[in-house]
Amino acid sequence: MSASKTNPGNFFEDFTIGQRLVHATPRTVTEGDRAVYGSLYPTRFAVPSSASFAASVGLTQHPVEELIAFHIAFGKTVPDISLNAVANLGYAECRFHQPVVPGDTLSTTSEVIGLKQNSNGKSGVVYVRSTATNQRGEVALEWARWVMVHKRDVDAPAPEAVVPDLAPAVAAADLVLPAGLDFSGYDFAAAGETHRFDDYEVGERIDHVDGVTLTESEHQQATRLWQNTAKVHFNKEARPDGRNLVYGGHVISMARALSFNGLANAQLVAAINAGAHTSPAFAGDTVYAWSEVLDKAETPVPSVGALRLRLVATKGRDESMTLRGEDGKYAEGVLLDLDYWALIPR
Amino acid sequence: MSASKTNPGNFFEDFTIGQRLVHATPRTVTEGDRAVYGSLYPTRFAVPSSASFAASVGLTQHPVEELIAFHIAFGKTVPDISLNAVANLGYAECRFHQPVVPGDTLSTTSEVIGLKQNSNGKSGVVYVRSTATNQRGEVALEWARWVMVHKRDVDAPAPEAVVPDLAPAVAAADLVLPAGLDFSGYDFAAAGETHRFDDYEVGERIDHVDGVTLTESEHQQATRLWQNTAKVHFNKEARPDGRNLVYGGHVISMARALSFNGLANAQLVAAINAGAHTSPAFAGDTVYAWSEVLDKAETPVPSVGALRLRLVATKGRDESMTLRGEDGKYAEGVLLDLDYWALIPR
Amino acid sequence: MSASKTNPGNFFEDFTIGQRLVHATPRTVTEGDRAVYGSLYPTRFAVPSSASFAASVGLTQHPVEELIAFHIAFGKTVPDISLNAVANLGYAECRFHQPVVPGDTLSTTSEVIGLKQNSNGKSGVVYVRSTATNQRGEVALEWARWVMVHKRDVDAPAPEAVVPDLAPAVAAADLVLPAGLDFSGYDFAAAGETHRFDDYEVGERIDHVDGVTLTESEHQQATRLWQNTAKVHFNKEARPDGRNLVYGGHVISMARALSFNGLANAQLVAAINAGAHTSPAFAGDTVYAWSEVLDKAETPVPSVGALRLRLVATKGRDESMTLRGEDGKYAEGVLLDLDYWALIPR
Repeated sequence: MSASKTNPGNFFEDFTIGQRLVHATPRTVTEGDRAVYGSLYPTRFAVPSSASFAASVGLTQHPVEELIAFHIAFGKTVPDISLNAVANLGYAECRFHQPVVPGDTLSTTSEVIGLKQNSNGKSGVVYVRSTATNQRGEVALEWARWVMVHKRDVDAPAPEAVVPDLAPAVAAADLVLPAGLDFSGYDFAAAGETHRFDDYEVGERIDHVDGVTLTESEHQQATRLWQNTAKVHFNKEARPDGRNLVYGGHVISMARALSFNGLANAQLVAAINAGAHTSPAFAGDTVYAWSEVLDKAETPVPSVGALRLRLVATKGRDESMTLRGEDGKYAEGVLLDLDYWALIPR
Repeated sequence: MSASKTNPGNFFEDFTIGQRLVHATPRTVTEGDRAVYGSLYPTRFAVPSSASFAASVGLTQHPVEELIAFHIAFGKTVPDISLNAVANLGYAECRFHQPVVPGDTLSTTSEVIGLKQNSNGKSGVVYVRSTATNQRGEVALEWARWVMVHKRDVDAPAPEAVVPDLAPAVAAADLVLPAGLDFSGYDFAAAGETHRFDDYEVGERIDHVDGVTLTESEHQQATRLWQNTAKVHFNKEARPDGRNLVYGGHVISMARALSFNGLANAQLVAAINAGAHTSPAFAGDTVYAWSEVLDKAETPVPSVGALRLRLVATKGRDESMTLRGEDGKYAEGVLLDLDYWALIPR
Repeated sequence: MSASKTNPGNFFEDFTIGQRLVHATPRTVTEGDRAVYGSLYPTRFAVPSSASFAASVGLTQHPVEELIAFHIAFGKTVPDISLNAVANLGYAECRFHQPVVPGDTLSTTSEVIGLKQNSNGKSGVVYVRSTATNQRGEVALEWARWVMVHKRDVDAPAPEAVVPDLAPAVAAADLVLPAGLDFSGYDFAAAGETHRFDDYEVGERIDHVDGVTLTESEHQQATRLWQNTAKVHFNKEARPDGRNLVYGGHVISMARALSFNGLANAQLVAAINAGAHTSPAFAGDTVYAWSEVLDKAETPVPSVGALRLRLVATKGRDESMTLRGEDGKYAEGVLLDLDYWALIPR
């Protein structure tokens, strides 16, 4: 009887196309989350750092970093989607629909949009589209994600393969700007750098210089804060090597925070186009970051531009900023390859 | 002169029956406490996690976990009661009288209700009843506790032995339900599990499956957050083995959080009947938990039931869920044996 | 192009007398900061701990510890002043002009008030006066500081030497009391000790008894919370010995919190007269503190007295409370020598 009370997670054959999952548990965002986040990542972006600065760019309330909303919304999906995952394969079409502010309560639901059993018959890829809504039922963010999930029973029949058609990037025209956002009175001195939209060129790479050595407690505190329950992050007995795997989102937040040095005015994350965790990270690793400008776009607000950026986290600093070797594979030391849109003053 | 300024703590002979102690220092609970708690424990209970969920079950404000209130109120007593304690022997008759919400300020007072010198003449057992009140002077929680305390002077005369008559458990009729609590519109999907009052049977045991490896920083941050000053938790030079002892309350909170997996709907702690820290815990230990249903009771609110649960924390997972060996002693690896009442939808 | 985007920090020859620096980024203080601070330091002073206690001494809002404001304001100056510092040499004339409360946004500006190239020609001392203002433009605190900074180019010409005339201590008459502060209804039992202004004598030393072993995560979380970006604290690859240096302010906060035991009623820090970080601290060190009463003064409010205190942090406990050896140098183990004014009930 006891076994039936705990959640074994879903296996590949438990998913069906069109299936809807209501994820537990709703979570209220607070000023405490902003402070804990600030103790774990060296973030200094002026909008989430300062209520006054946020007001000066037209925001009526003081938003938390978009990645706080992302991690919370994402964490909700873990018990249902990826408790039995072999690997988190990718993200796509992630859009932030409105700023999340303290007091907002986020709930997440998902729909299964693709299934493809692996040729070995032991696992398969599950594609889901997830949506996080606030206490008013409004969409806060949405994203697609695909994970490789174990089968419970290797003899379970393979479902008809359905692979969704996901965009390689969110179109600039589909970016949602926060209501009221206006950078025309932007205070560059307060924000920390003078570089604006026109100062960045497509193809430009920026070495963010600084590094942070990961510690055991910090990555676990971060991951736990998002109610992410994947046991590999917390339980040294859960992996043969006795090491706690660092949650990929921890590397995302660390790299984004490090990118302040060179991208201080890339204030808001509007979308995540794609993301790959290319190598595992562990406590003791020193994480550095570099960025590449992939694209630039205007927005409906004249003072606000959008930069499409590749954010790369590495273990150890790579001043050459090499993404892939000649064999086309990710270079050694690359931990993360994230493609996102940021909003920046023009 | 300097020695007289610092607090040496009370020794056994400093306590007298009927003595009242006003503990320093009052402490205001904030949303920050909720966030830090969430970064230290894998808690996901929907009521403390979500203001919206709390409102949906009739609570007019968003309470923090009862254990936050317990740890804060308990921490206040340490400098006066247990700074010179040999061991924390037990708890009884702990009742939560009303939810604690951000903005509440807790103060604690204690009354000495029992004294019994040990036969070795070097120490004795002190029994106290402690009461935490809020800024309106209303009782938030109360409990009894007994600790073994060193004598300053082994030649000090033994007091008349008084051993209070403490109930083995809080009677179900004495449980205090939060004002307005009503589970009739309870959202089981949002809460994370479908099991309700009727799905649990007396004698049933639940293996909560998940484990967390304790880290040095985390247990200290938790303990410090409660202003608990017992030096064995923070100072490696304070113990002959050079190790920091984990505060027993850290194990309680960890086990309670782990119990979500199988008891997700045991939303609120209404009382703690008894508790024993049966073995010390240290950083590096991996903590697991299992529960046993000890009793069930109705409450005055038809939609709300009460489960009396034994919550056992172990070092390393024990799938056999063995509390005691054939010799009647606690099985190896058992860290905590806690007996409490939880409120759950019927 | 990329190199030009990141901040290399200022070198000695980049500073000029009278130069004004507007530091990024403004930072809003929240209840989350109070909670994280409480998880990192064993602080129990009743005013910042309890909103009710703060109200009982006449404060209309619940201030955070002065050191939270100091660390935030100080952290802002690091990227512009001390990113290329060899050493942080001293503080002077630090005054707290009004309590900082959750919701306040702090911004910092600095003026260069002194420059003196070292005889080796490789570095020089930069003196700055920094001012932190809140969202209403009111001064929250100000201080002077001098640091030794590398030259970028050893052949750059030396500026005319200007060494400012800094007061050895803030005059008691210049201390700013928080508006409304009145200790006439002070609750000594709630505050934790009975010692008041008249119980302290100039020359008296107090051994604060307790010790805390520093951990890697905690000092980094603290330092990061203040948006302090000095890489030696976070990046094990940034120092030849592969160790993370503990931010000096972490030692200040730890010592101040430990001083509760003997100075529980020294509720508010009104000024910092001088400060020297005499030796580096690392994770694993166990920090103790002792204090010496340097001076006493009345204030315009009859119930409020001021104690001028020397706060000394040591690595390992020194019951002899020895500041300097016979050679006049700081005794081995001394980490911090801080001179400050505290407000205490008379």
